[in-house]
Amino acid sequence: ARGHRCRLLQEVGSFVRSTFNGQLVPDQVFPFPSGPALPLPLLCRVKEVNDPTKNEKLESIEEATLAGLKAMGAFGLQVPEELGGVGLTNTQYARMVEVVGVHDLGVGISLGAHQSIGFKGILLFGTKSQKEKYLPKLASGETVAAFCLTEPSSGSDAASIQTMAEPSACGNFYTLNGGKIWISNGGTAEIFTVFAKTPVKERTGEVTEKISAFIVERAFGGVTSGPPEKKMGIKCSNTAEVHFDNVKVPAENLLGELGKGFNVAMNILNNGRFGMASALAGTMRGVIVKAVRHAAARTQFGNKISRYGAIQEKIARMAMLHYVTESMAYMLSANMDMRVPDYKLEAAISKIFASEAAWHVTDECIQVLGGMGYMQETGVEKVMRDLRIFRIFEGTNDILRLFVALVGIEVMTCGLCPTLPSPGRGGEGMQGPGAIGISTGSSLQGIVHPDLDGSVDLVGALGVTRVAASLRSLPSDKQFHLKRIADAAIDIYAMAVVLSRATRSLSLGQPTAEHEKLLCQTWCHEAFERVRGNLRAAKSPPWTQSFTNMELISDAVVQNGGVVASHPLSF
Amino acid sequence: ARGHRCRLLQEVGSFVRSTFNGQLVPDQVFPFPSGPALPLPLLCRVKEVNDPTKNEKLESIEEATLAGLKAMGAFGLQVPEELGGVGLTNTQYARMVEVVGVHDLGVGISLGAHQSIGFKGILLFGTKSQKEKYLPKLASGETVAAFCLTEPSSGSDAASIQTMAEPSACGNFYTLNGGKIWISNGGTAEIFTVFAKTPVKERTGEVTEKISAFIVERAFGGVTSGPPEKKMGIKCSNTAEVHFDNVKVPAENLLGELGKGFNVAMNILNNGRFGMASALAGTMRGVIVKAVRHAAARTQFGNKISRYGAIQEKIARMAMLHYVTESMAYMLSANMDMRVPDYKLEAAISKIFASEAAWHVTDECIQVLGGMGYMQETGVEKVMRDLRIFRIFEGTNDILRLFVALVGIEVMTCGLCPTLPSPGRGGEGMQGPGAIGISTGSSLQGIVHPDLDGSVDLVGALGVTRVAASLRSLPSDKQFHLKRIADAAIDIYAMAVVLSRATRSLSLGQPTAEHEKLLCQTWCHEAFERVRGNLRAAKSPPWTQSFTNMELISDAVVQNGGVVASHPLSF
Ligand SMILES: Cc1cc2nc3c(=O)[nH]c(=O)nc-3n(C[C@H](O)[C@H](O)[C@H](O)COP(=O)(O)OP(=O)(O)OC[C@H]3O[C@@H](n4cnc5c(N)ncnc54)[C@H](O)[C@@H]3O)c2cc1C
Ligand SMILES: Cc1cc2nc3c(=O)[nH]c(=O)nc-3n(C[C@H](O)[C@H](O)[C@H](O)COP(=O)(O)OP(=O)(O)OC[C@H]3O[C@@H](n4cnc5c(N)ncnc54)[C@H](O)[C@@H]3O)c2cc1C
Repeated sequence: ARGHRCRLLQEVGSFVRSTFNGQLVPDQVFPFPSGPALPLPLLCRVKEVNDPTKNEKLESIEEATLAGLKAMGAFGLQVPEELGGVGLTNTQYARMVEVVGVHDLGVGISLGAHQSIGFKGILLFGTKSQKEKYLPKLASGETVAAFCLTEPSSGSDAASIQTMAEPSACGNFYTLNGGKIWISNGGTAEIFTVFAKTPVKERTGEVTEKISAFIVERAFGGVTSGPPEKKMGIKCSNTAEVHFDNVKVPAENLLGELGKGFNVAMNILNNGRFGMASALAGTMRGVIVKAVRHAAARTQFGNKISRYGAIQEKIARMAMLHYVTESMAYMLSANMDMRVPDYKLEAAISKIFASEAAWHVTDECIQVLGGMGYMQETGVEKVMRDLRIFRIFEGTNDILRLFVALVGIEVMTCGLCPTLPSPGRGGEGMQGPGAIGISTGSSLQGIVHPDLDGSVDLVGALGVTRVAASLRSLPSDKQFHLKRIADAAIDIYAMAVVLSRATRSLSLGQPTAEHEKLLCQTWCHEAFERVRGNLRAAKSPPWTQSFTNMELISDAVVQNGGVVASHPLSF
Repeated sequence: ARGHRCRLLQEVGSFVRSTFNGQLVPDQVFPFPSGPALPLPLLCRVKEVNDPTKNEKLESIEEATLAGLKAMGAFGLQVPEELGGVGLTNTQYARMVEVVGVHDLGVGISLGAHQSIGFKGILLFGTKSQKEKYLPKLASGETVAAFCLTEPSSGSDAASIQTMAEPSACGNFYTLNGGKIWISNGGTAEIFTVFAKTPVKERTGEVTEKISAFIVERAFGGVTSGPPEKKMGIKCSNTAEVHFDNVKVPAENLLGELGKGFNVAMNILNNGRFGMASALAGTMRGVIVKAVRHAAARTQFGNKISRYGAIQEKIARMAMLHYVTESMAYMLSANMDMRVPDYKLEAAISKIFASEAAWHVTDECIQVLGGMGYMQETGVEKVMRDLRIFRIFEGTNDILRLFVALVGIEVMTCGLCPTLPSPGRGGEGMQGPGAIGISTGSSLQGIVHPDLDGSVDLVGALGVTRVAASLRSLPSDKQFHLKRIADAAIDIYAMAVVLSRATRSLSLGQPTAEHEKLLCQTWCHEAFERVRGNLRAAKSPPWTQSFTNMELISDAVVQNGGVVASHPLSF
């Protein structure tokens, strides 16, 4: 298995994976992808048919609005044209959801739950007849789809679901029983991608329960859904419980292989993350406009507030966070369009980064607006409420961080393969070229535009990254360390994508190249400091002491059911 | 004036002020104050009369609830008993608003706008007859008060208000004209503390316009208010415009001296900040209970999630942030009860810290709750929405940071007095004992409990603080630097208060002393790192380059009305 994994790494060249081995494999990151100019699909005119404030008030999307969206092809953006869809590439889709993200995240989630996860399984794993049967109506919006994974006792731990699909004796159908919660479009969908346990006969003859995926129609009977949940935001997006009570699912509605449903679920989620990044890049773009318009118009203390450093720092940070997110989003969609086999870590990082960047940008926009920002009429507080869910669903950012670090550390263990020097023991030797496959070693010289050279010591950062190798024997419950390794990986990838994008702009002499150089240099300066800090924290004794302390503090507070320290007053 | 300021510093002994001079003046911080055990006023039973969810839905507080609160004395907590109030000390008041803060911030703001700012001016600056006339009805809640400073063109820059109060020729009254916005209780109050410009004759004979404060009754006529604003949170707290149209204000309703109204306003706000800190300490206490209850009950991946480092880190940070905030709140209220003459910086720091700590704690509570945290039924998203305003009103945190840094740097210029070595040139000499008044030099040895000694190098931190002295010639528009100096000051004060509180616990052998030691040590370890980072950033050339870059980035984005970098796609 180890040899296999190493081979994978060589073939694959995922940038983030390779950094864990102290390598820079720039192929997927340089040069920054620039696709052909394409016509903007109709959905770019979403504003003409949709009113976000009205949706929020109604806590649903009106039929007329839905009809308008359907007419724009919004329900089948990536469905092949021959099956009634718009047939967009991932990059085109990303561009479209960016437009929606500027405008209304609630509608974005409704559309995303439908096509990015709801029927994505049919696109990715469906048989020809499943595709022909379901996709045309889904693409037109005649039917709406939902993705049913989460259960009351299974959120992050999706493998622990209890919903059962029992095969009939005749083999013609499965009987589905169980309950799902917080299903987007759960109350409005007719077609559900449902994950359930099925008995699977192993080669050994033993029967174990494994997850399988099914296409379930509400029309099968026995499917019921609860009232819409009352939420903090994305109020127009329907979220509901869905119950399956002796639902008879025809055997041909099995999606993918029997017992491979967990893989189906993870692939769907992994495949959908690029859309979240570009949608949130759009959101940030819109929010930044609001912030700078206000800053340019508002006078206090005799000057426009945009003249004050405190405001300038906020706006500059907004611009940098947006630049990174947008770069990640379109890097990822292009990689997917180029069919790179491995982009899991990049997708996870993009989801984490985008959801946190958008949150921060919007929070600062409110601060720039002052009291105005707290008023509903400005519309920014709505965006903030909408955004809060993005750090939770489709994998909490905390779980995705663990995922990034654990997969990374697993890559490091490849160092034990005979063909590779151990990252822990290899020391500086790892920097040499040719250590792994297509690697150029650890330098981006000659790849990054010379104007950017001085701005960043990515090589140095990677030198530090190899610190992480010393943790490869880490038990997986050392989450304090894993978080810091993940944060370092996120920053390194962020540096790489902006170096790539700014390089392209400088090389092409684009009009905004000098501005992008500033964004890139300023970002990299701080990111590099953070990488160093995080990796130092992951291995230095005072920090280890802090981690132990925090464990003790938390245990005591949990045990006590709340704050432990006695109140400073005696009354 | 300089000599005068230095004398002030000596007499006053404000801890934070003194740190800017490279000194530790521990008198106001050590030992941690422990007042006498006092009976809990009736308001501690606020839960029995108030339903936060109902208030939120109604976007107001029902008459029955108000009656219940009034019966508990909630409207006159600090009014002397002989004038119909409960006569609480600042510490007792802080304890009461802590209880309200756990329960309902919307009600907290309504009560706070009434007594913490609405009629606080009468308590602080009122004449005997003003007090006798107004306080009894205000204390019973028969009349409600509001504080009217903000105007459409004057928020942070309160000195620029346009509302005018013209004295009548006879000298018996003022004619008040102008409009105020975002006034808490603006639509429900009968009594307003109003700030307006008045012509003031200087000693030179010249007439200039200066701000004066007035007690204005709605009953005077010409006072109108707008509909309640629609806000992100604290929805039950009424926020409205208030207009004054030829209102005749009797001359005896001038509050404080003519032309000294700005001072009145700043004193009221300064005097009210301790309440915000303790209210938010209460909010955090409540939110932490929700987070740990969930973490202790929720199983994922075979374990209670409270067993996982990622969750433990969140809970430990919540506990630390709460510990610091609570310590600041009761340090401040005790200092005020002891009538220390100068607590401006400590009050500003407590407001900044509490509002950001509560925001962070609540955000992390939502994350610990996962999908549950996004649901209205859990009640945490409401707290988050309520909290967003605390970083904006009563001085935005950004403005208060500038205030802390600028006042601090002004203190440094005392170094130019003949009796004091210059902080810039004095170098290590500044550490010697006796440099300033009651200072013990820069060491807390013998003051901090020996168990805590190893945990913190406050002396070292102050050594670094003196770096800031090199910036004393800084033009006040170097806000990038000022922010970092303020952040360092905040962290140093935070370290001091928790060192003080943990010292008391350890010395008394309190049952939670060891836990408090952990909180204190873990906090100080990180805070010290931050202080170093911030002060390094404030003086090192790569950072200065970053600041310049950010200025350029911001200017370009403002000029462009939004993101500058060309879109990565050509469509
Ligand atoms: C508005 C909304 C829409 C949704 N839409 C859908 C949908 O369409 N389809 C669907 O299937 N689901 C949907 N969900 C569910 C969503 O995906 C889950 O909420 C999410 O996966 C988190 O699961 P949970 O809420 O059970 O939290 P939990 O998994 O219980 O996590 C609680 C906390 O514990 C942490 N945690 C858990 N395990 C560990 C560990 N091992 N180590 C460290 N920390 C850990 C988490 O990071 C989190 O902070 C939706 C949820 C919401 C709120
Ligand atoms: C719900 C609510 C209740 C309120 N209650 C009251 C009340 O009871 N009474 C009352 O009088 N007011 C009240 N206010 C007003 C509140 O105090 C102001 O909103 C606050 O002072 C900020 O002013 P502003 O909104 O005009 O923002 P601005 O002052 O315009 O500030 C906008 C942004 O610019 C920044 N900024 C401004 N000047 C500078 C500078 N020189 N350097 C750097 N940055 C700068 C600010 O920090 C902020 O980020 C309330 C407001 C709200 C929303």
